[in-house]
Amino acid sequence: MSETAKRWPLPPAMQAALDEARKAAQAGEVPVGAVIVRDGAIVASAHNAPRALKDPTAHAEMLAIRRAAQALGDDRLTGCDLYVTLEPCPMCAGAIAHARIARVYYGASDPKGGAVEHGCRTFEQAGCLHRPEVYAGIGESEAADLLRGFFRERR
Amino acid sequence: MSETAKRWPLPPAMQAALDEARKAAQAGEVPVGAVIVRDGAIVASAHNAPRALKDPTAHAEMLAIRRAAQALGDDRLTGCDLYVTLEPCPMCAGAIAHARIARVYYGASDPKGGAVEHGCRTFEQAGCLHRPEVYAGIGESEAADLLRGFFRERR
Repeated sequence: MSETAKRWPLPPAMQAALDEARKAAQAGEVPVGAVIVRDGAIVASAHNAPRALKDPTAHAEMLAIRRAAQALGDDRLTGCDLYVTLEPCPMCAGAIAHARIARVYYGASDPKGGAVEHGCRTFEQAGCLHRPEVYAGIGESEAADLLRGFFRERR
Repeated sequence: MSETAKRWPLPPAMQAALDEARKAAQAGEVPVGAVIVRDGAIVASAHNAPRALKDPTAHAEMLAIRRAAQALGDDRLTGCDLYVTLEPCPMCAGAIAHARIARVYYGASDPKGGAVEHGCRTFEQAGCLHRPEVYAGIGESEAADLLRGFFRERR
């Protein structure tokens, strides 16, 4: 009998982002979670909450960025990394650039709404003032399962 | 002697957005102002304030959208119009689409950072879920003068 392949463990920050996404689903919001890390420690975490907060800008990334900036007392998150379960949209990609996030790790790709490897490819635009390093597909299947489950229930 | 040309008066909402931009300049922030109007009444107004609020997402449009959503108790600003002194960036254009803003009136164009008629042309992307009507150049010279004056002083 052959040994089954072991899955490479997800980084703890992406695990935390997935936990945030689950909280969003429980609250009836599209399950996306985000975490901001600096020097190996989580500085802020958030889940998607536009309905609960009555705020169309309250995507997980936006809330995490705003909370991290508050926590660090600086509107620039230099040296911070963002872990998010879904490819950022144009709004969030723009905010990532404004915040000077160093690295972005994301789970599921979003061919329709994403703006990193799809659509306007925000960070490749000539006018983009800051280009983070981007790593895709970390926790992809877990993140995509959460989204699929959420939308299946609502159909 | 010939009569000099009279300037067409600016809409009061754009006057209010320009007043907000002046407040930003006085506070040492890049002078951009925004106002949200519904049924002819101003629902929210804001100026650019990322430094004061320690929030990289605190562009005038974002703050105005968030305040309007709070005031109206809804994360969708259906039937609302946005007046902003500068062409929105990718982050703000994305937020405008998420908020379902009906019409966007803006002053100065921003060939470097703008994302409406420049860069990724957010509302023309296939994945854009909502396309507002857009009117450019309203209060353009006043808005551009404010920005030029601000950056001249800082050089």
